[in-house]
Amino acid sequence: MEFSSKLLQEAVEQVSFLPGIGKRTALRLVLHLLNQDQEVTTDLAKSLLDLKLKIKRCKNCHNISDSEICDICANPKRDQSIVCVVEDIRDIMAIENTEQYRGVYHVLNGKINPIEGIGPNDLTIESLTQKAKEGQINEIIFALSSTMEGDTTNFYIYKQIENFDIKMSTIARGISVGDELEFADEVTLGRSIVHRIPFEKSLKA
Amino acid sequence: MEFSSKLLQEAVEQVSFLPGIGKRTALRLVLHLLNQDQEVTTDLAKSLLDLKLKIKRCKNCHNISDSEICDICANPKRDQSIVCVVEDIRDIMAIENTEQYRGVYHVLNGKINPIEGIGPNDLTIESLTQKAKEGQINEIIFALSSTMEGDTTNFYIYKQIENFDIKMSTIARGISVGDELEFADEVTLGRSIVHRIPFEKSLKA
Repeated sequence: MEFSSKLLQEAVEQVSFLPGIGKRTALRLVLHLLNQDQEVTTDLAKSLLDLKLKIKRCKNCHNISDSEICDICANPKRDQSIVCVVEDIRDIMAIENTEQYRGVYHVLNGKINPIEGIGPNDLTIESLTQKAKEGQINEIIFALSSTMEGDTTNFYIYKQIENFDIKMSTIARGISVGDELEFADEVTLGRSIVHRIPFEKSLKA
Repeated sequence: MEFSSKLLQEAVEQVSFLPGIGKRTALRLVLHLLNQDQEVTTDLAKSLLDLKLKIKRCKNCHNISDSEICDICANPKRDQSIVCVVEDIRDIMAIENTEQYRGVYHVLNGKINPIEGIGPNDLTIESLTQKAKEGQINEIIFALSSTMEGDTTNFYIYKQIENFDIKMSTIARGISVGDELEFADEVTLGRSIVHRIPFEKSLKA
């Protein structure tokens, strides 16, 4: 792509570094900003810089937060002894939306992924095992995606913690509510049969 | 969507103002920036602000440019008497890629669109008619998209200029090279028959 302006080219290249945004989309976004008032670009740039400079991570669970301790950890109604292990903040938002969970979280900031060079030390596993050691945790719920990376990470944490007296569980895998059985994949359907639940329990939620 | 941080919420909202970017995509982009080095965000913000503050429009054709006159208008090899009217800079890039055009351009910065409140005075039509009045132009080629807005804009400019001794043409509409006739829409196919070209000419490009 040849540009009539170095400034334009620079802006398009910067925007196209974002994930899922190619050169064409970047150009469209940049031209949109050019056609707007100065304020739109200023506000956008300012909020991105503010976010990067001022954002904090909760000291307890590594959730993104404006204060030292996030709202969930600071909430006295949440059960601090149940910890749900998630990959990032989007998973917290998804689980919070269900309104079914009253424990707290632990954000790993990723999954173990040797191909991309992400090892256990790049994640917040150390602070999770520390909390486990101190006896603050009764149950850990693994809520990582069930990919190879997710399973590896679960297993790594399991191995770190297995000697402590802590219940460990993973979220249930099964057929989505409303899905047709015939279109379900074999692995999911298989697991949903192996891990079937008593009918009376299924009536509750 | 509920956020654990006001800063995060603000950033996601600013990013989701961009066209074609919803709240979910905005969150993904913002979290990506959060996981990168500080420089990535600084560079992005800086290049957007630089673009907005320092970018110029070519005095002659309104193309985006780093100088008063854009590279195309300043090129002595381009024929200044042939002017191709386009909607925005992306159309110039597309036409330049063909390497078939040696005239100059005139960027309208949009199309007449009453529904969105865009009238002739919001575009750069005035400066085009001015150039026409001064006798600088021999031919005007309309290269707007063939939508109602594009056709309206073409016709408006045509009416402004029809009394001057200027040849006016539009780019050819027809079946794309390599396309199957059976899948072409009727209007395009119809036009490609009405405006058929001598076979010998078709051999040239």
